Amino acid sequence: MRSQADENHPDLRSALNLLLSAGGKRIRPGLTMLAGRMLHAEHERLLSLSAAIELLHTATLVHDDLIDNSLLRRGIPTLNSRWSPGATVLTGDFIFARAANMAAETNSIPVMKIFARTLSTIVNGEITQLFGNRCTVDRESYCFRIYSKTASLFETSAQAAALISPVEEQVVEWMRQYGYNIGMAFQIIDDILDFTSQEDTLGKPVGSDLRQGIITLPAIIYAETYHDDGYAADLLAGRCIPEGDRIEELILKIRTSDAIQKSHAEAVRYVETGLNALRQVPAGPERFALEELANYIVQREL
Amino acid sequence: MRSQADENHPDLRSALNLLLSAGGKRIRPGLTMLAGRMLHAEHERLLSLSAAIELLHTATLVHDDLIDNSLLRRGIPTLNSRWSPGATVLTGDFIFARAANMAAETNSIPVMKIFARTLSTIVNGEITQLFGNRCTVDRESYCFRIYSKTASLFETSAQAAALISPVEEQVVEWMRQYGYNIGMAFQIIDDILDFTSQEDTLGKPVGSDLRQGIITLPAIIYAETYHDDGYAADLLAGRCIPEGDRIEELILKIRTSDAIQKSHAEAVRYVETGLNALRQVPAGPERFALEELANYIVQREL
Repeated sequence: MRSQADENHPDLRSALNLLLSAGGKRIRPGLTMLAGRMLHAEHERLLSLSAAIELLHTATLVHDDLIDNSLLRRGIPTLNSRWSPGATVLTGDFIFARAANMAAETNSIPVMKIFARTLSTIVNGEITQLFGNRCTVDRESYCFRIYSKTASLFETSAQAAALISPVEEQVVEWMRQYGYNIGMAFQIIDDILDFTSQEDTLGKPVGSDLRQGIITLPAIIYAETYHDDGYAADLLAGRCIPEGDRIEELILKIRTSDAIQKSHAEAVRYVETGLNALRQVPAGPERFALEELANYIVQREL
Repeated sequence: MRSQADENHPDLRSALNLLLSAGGKRIRPGLTMLAGRMLHAEHERLLSLSAAIELLHTATLVHDDLIDNSLLRRGIPTLNSRWSPGATVLTGDFIFARAANMAAETNSIPVMKIFARTLSTIVNGEITQLFGNRCTVDRESYCFRIYSKTASLFETSAQAAALISPVEEQVVEWMRQYGYNIGMAFQIIDDILDFTSQEDTLGKPVGSDLRQGIITLPAIIYAETYHDDGYAADLLAGRCIPEGDRIEELILKIRTSDAIQKSHAEAVRYVETGLNALRQVPAGPERFALEELANYIVQREL
């Protein structure tokens, strides 16, 4: 990944190094590497694919942080906190280009196609959120959003690993299902953590989604379950950001309600569906690690 | 191209329609179509490639106009003049994604690779300009800049058309040379027009590059030729934006000097080199049209 900025402008090299040095969980390329090794993908192509996926993810974060004016990511200052908007836009574009370059190094047309489609899906999701109605208590919108935002790239990470492996189409489909489902679970857990974590763990105020009018699963389930409650009635009526202390009370109500456990149970169901698909593939150490990865997702500290 | 936003957010569809309705010369996809027809490329793949090239060009313009805060392009308001920066960034990203999708539809790995490389080249050039020293009177920097900005995509337009055609590697190389050279000429002519056109034709002040500290070929040749002149001495010393009336005088001096004709002669030399490469391919109506296209580039109204 780091070598992708060689022979380019020195500030671009240092920006890429900075972004990569922050680390992150590297869960998507980890998933790709494990899936590819399990299915006997060729090592070099698998490395290219994993780098392509992490770079695509990184490029979308660079533009997201600019758009949201976020100042910290993974504990270090974002690019947009230090550079002009123009330089930040261009650095994101450059990383997209290098992601496409790494994807092309897999020498797989099907991989290139799902790669391009995934980028469209992610961006279309963000535009829909930007222009869309806020405060919509609607499971269908929610699923569309978390698929666009997170599950689409998890799906691609697993599916593309199978596509460059010597396996039948059915195996590609099982891996796609595995990736899709654990991606959906991953985002649901993130959305739960937004309510249940401490502010200093999150690095932002508790309930930050709701404060921006973004309704996630815990709020949807709360509204569905307690529709007679005044707060839930407001949510359902599209008044999702109560003024003053009422927003704090609403967040506390959701946080301490059984909507959290019910949301968690939905994430567990996604993981189980994903594991069922994965278990169609013969057992072995990599499959075991992918099972552990799926379980880790729903066991992150609530 | 228009169908690429189908099934996406309606605002994204209308943005793409607006951008495409503005037209432009469509010189790059025109070049690709002619080259591909000349070399007997398959029609559907050629259409995909041409659309990919125009979309890539369009996406870079969307981000450029945002970065430069340009309000008009091709006579219509730019996206950034009407939308938030975030929406504009995302629309550009979406068009990149759809360009990658169309490129993948060519089913050619070599095309995907040069496509990704071209995007890196364009963006690296812009970043170099953004961070680089202004007021540099240096032919090497100038050639790097116009290659990144313009000739790289012309090169790809012609080379990729050959890559999806049933031709020898040598023909691919001839077409690459043709595209590269007419692209260099195209940008030199643009840079001449920035000095010689009227403000109302340009839609911006005459000499706008120089006013921003961007030294193009006419200024380089002026400085080389008249190095004893006070203005040229300033240019060579890196003081390229004289204050007050002196900038108007410098622009007038360059505009009325033989630096314009000498710059034009360099563009003509590039076109001749491109035509020499093109003429290695057997004659026919498409080759004739590509020759006319090359000649048109240096015959645009000075």
